[in-house]
Amino acid sequence: MFRIGVIGGGQLARMMQPAAIALGFELRVFAEADNASAKAAASMVGDYTDFEELAAFAKTVDVITFDHEHVPIDLLSRLEASGVSVQPSSSALIHAQNKLVMRRRIDQLGLPQPSWREISSAAELDEFIREMGDAVIVKTPIGGYDGKGVRVVETSADVADWLSDLPRYGGSLLAEQKVSFVRELAQLSARRPSGEFRAWPLVQTVQAAGVCSEVIAPAPEPADLAGAEAIARAIAEGLDTTGVLAVEMFEDASGRLLINELAMRPHNSGHFSIDAAATSQFEQHLRAVLDLPLGETEMISDIAVMINLLGVDDSNDFVSHYPAVMKRFPQVKFHNYQKAPRKGRKMGHLTVLGADLAELLTTGQSARDMLYRGA
Amino acid sequence: MFRIGVIGGGQLARMMQPAAIALGFELRVFAEADNASAKAAASMVGDYTDFEELAAFAKTVDVITFDHEHVPIDLLSRLEASGVSVQPSSSALIHAQNKLVMRRRIDQLGLPQPSWREISSAAELDEFIREMGDAVIVKTPIGGYDGKGVRVVETSADVADWLSDLPRYGGSLLAEQKVSFVRELAQLSARRPSGEFRAWPLVQTVQAAGVCSEVIAPAPEPADLAGAEAIARAIAEGLDTTGVLAVEMFEDASGRLLINELAMRPHNSGHFSIDAAATSQFEQHLRAVLDLPLGETEMISDIAVMINLLGVDDSNDFVSHYPAVMKRFPQVKFHNYQKAPRKGRKMGHLTVLGADLAELLTTGQSARDMLYRGA
Repeated sequence: MFRIGVIGGGQLARMMQPAAIALGFELRVFAEADNASAKAAASMVGDYTDFEELAAFAKTVDVITFDHEHVPIDLLSRLEASGVSVQPSSSALIHAQNKLVMRRRIDQLGLPQPSWREISSAAELDEFIREMGDAVIVKTPIGGYDGKGVRVVETSADVADWLSDLPRYGGSLLAEQKVSFVRELAQLSARRPSGEFRAWPLVQTVQAAGVCSEVIAPAPEPADLAGAEAIARAIAEGLDTTGVLAVEMFEDASGRLLINELAMRPHNSGHFSIDAAATSQFEQHLRAVLDLPLGETEMISDIAVMINLLGVDDSNDFVSHYPAVMKRFPQVKFHNYQKAPRKGRKMGHLTVLGADLAELLTTGQSARDMLYRGA
Repeated sequence: MFRIGVIGGGQLARMMQPAAIALGFELRVFAEADNASAKAAASMVGDYTDFEELAAFAKTVDVITFDHEHVPIDLLSRLEASGVSVQPSSSALIHAQNKLVMRRRIDQLGLPQPSWREISSAAELDEFIREMGDAVIVKTPIGGYDGKGVRVVETSADVADWLSDLPRYGGSLLAEQKVSFVRELAQLSARRPSGEFRAWPLVQTVQAAGVCSEVIAPAPEPADLAGAEAIARAIAEGLDTTGVLAVEMFEDASGRLLINELAMRPHNSGHFSIDAAATSQFEQHLRAVLDLPLGETEMISDIAVMINLLGVDDSNDFVSHYPAVMKRFPQVKFHNYQKAPRKGRKMGHLTVLGADLAELLTTGQSARDMLYRGA
C-alpha cells in the first residue's frame, strides 16, 4: 500500500484522485477548508503554515507532495529533518517558490532566460529600465500566480507600493526584461528520486490577462522540441526536482527559447494529458513521488486542445448548462473542479481530441462559451 | 449539482468515481461493508435488503443506480412508488436479475437466443436433455455470476441438489442448449430515459473457468457489427433499460449471434472503455441515469486489450510487484480495485492500447503474469 499526502486541496489535488483510484494508492489531502475542490480526499483540514499540523499529517502518509508551492520552506526542511519524505524536496521547491532564487540558479546552470535584476530600490529599478531601453516586468519573488504579483513597469513609480513594503516580499523584487515573444510554450516532464526522467510533447499555451486560456498539444511546428526537452532535463537534474516539472518558456521570432516560470507539481499546461496522453501528469506525479517507474508520455490522439473554464461571476454554475453543451458536443471531455464560483477563477477545463487544430479550437471555444452563457 | 446514489460498493462503483470527479457530480455509495472497493465514496454502509435503509439512502440523492443486480425487485418497486428515480427501473432490472424472465422476454422480442426450457422437475430436465441430444447448461435463475450458479449437465442427477431445493431458486431452474460457439462477443451500449441510445464497438470476450479473462476491443473481423448493435438496441428499447447495458453473445460457426446474458450496469466487457474510448462506460452510465446527453463512444486507439487480474491466493498483493512491472511495461494502464485478496477473485485489470493485436495480448499477459508472480 502506498499512501501519498498532498498539501493543498485545490483542483490539482482533486485531479490526482482518479489516478490514485486506478492505481490503488491511498491519497490523503491536507486541505485549507472544508469545501476544498479535493474535499472528497481530504483527511485533514488545517493551516499549512502550522508545523505541528503538518507533522501530524505527515505521520499518516509515506510521502508528502503538493497542490501548490506556498508551504514555507523552513517548515518543509524541519519535516525532512524529522525523517519525512518530501517530494519535491525543500531544496528543489525553493526554486518554484522564490523567483529570485530560480533566476540565480538558472544562470548558474547556463540555461537561457530573459535578462533580470534583483531590485532593492527605486534607483536600481530605474537603472534596469534604462539598460533594457523599454518597459520591464517586475515580479514579487514569492506568492504570485496567474498574473498576480506581476506588473509591466515603465518607471519605478509603477511599483512604488511594492518598493515601500519590501520586507513583505523578502527584501527585494525581481525585474525582468520584457521579452518580445511570438508565442509561449510549456515543457512538461517528470523525474523520480532515483533519476528516471520522461517528458511529454512540448505544448503551446495561450494566455489572456495573465491567465492560461488555452493549451495546444503538441505545439504546432516548427518548434525546438529537442531544445525544450533538454532545458527541462537540465532543470530537473540541476535542481534535483522530483514529481512533475512544468517549464514555461517564451519563443522569440528566431525560435529561441527563454525560461519564464517553473512549477514543481502538475500544471495547467499539462491538463491535456488526462485525456490525451498515455500517462496523465497526475498519475505520473504520484508514480514519481513514490519513486515508481514512470509511464509512457506520448499522445494518444494527434492533437488535443485544452480550454480553461473561468468563473463568469459569483453565482455561475456550469452544470446547469451541461444538457445543452453535452447534446451539441458529445466529443468534449468535461472537467469541473466544483469550486465556489468567482469571476475569473479557474473553475474547470474542457479537452477536445482530434486531428484538425482549427476545428478543435472552434469546438472547444464554442463549448466553453455555451457553458458560460447557456444555449 | 447532480447527486447519484449507487447501491453496492464493488469495483464498478469504485470506477464511477473518476467520472464523477471529472464531471463534478456527487457520487454517494451505499456499501455493504466498511472495506468496500468503493469505500472512498461510501456515504452509508448497510444492508441492501432492508427497505428502510434503502429509503434513507435514496433521500440523499437525485437518482439511484447499481453496482450489482441483487437488490430485491419488490424493494425497488416500493422506492419507485414513493417517488424515487431508480435507473434502470425495477421493471427493466428484473430481466438482468432473473434469467427465466429474461429468456421469456427475449423470445417475445423475437431476438436470437439458445433453445431453453423452464425446469421444475428431474423429468422435465431429462426430457430437455433428450431433445437437445447433448449435455445442456442449467442455471439458477437468480443470484449467479462469474460461473457461479451455472453447470454443464448430462443428466438431471448432476443438479439433484438444486432440484431438491427449488423454492430457494424461485421454484424452477433454467435449462439452455449448450451452444457450439466459435467465440464470445459482448455489445456494450447505453440508453437514457428520454431515449437516446449509443453503442460502443463490439468486443470479443475470452473466458477461463467461467470468468472473463481477456477482452479484445474491437472484436476482430469478421463480425456482424450491425446485427450486434441492432440486438442491443432492441433489448434496450424493448426492456426500456437505462444506463449501461451489456449483452453477452455467442457467435457460431456461421457468424450467427445468440444472446447469452444481460447486465444493466457497467460490465467487465466494457472496462477497455476507460482508457480506450472517447467516453468510458462509467461516465456514460452516470450521464445516462441522470438523463444527460450521452458522450461519443468511438475508440481512441486502434485496438485495446483488457486483461483481468484475479486473486492468486488469499494474501497476494499486486502492489508489491508494481516497481518491476511498471519498469518493464511503461505503456500498461493499471486498475487496482483494492479488494481483499482471495483466489480467483476479480482484483483489478490491465489495459494495453496499440495497433498490433498479437503484441498487445503478449504484453498484457506478460504484465499480468509478472504482477501475479513478481519479476
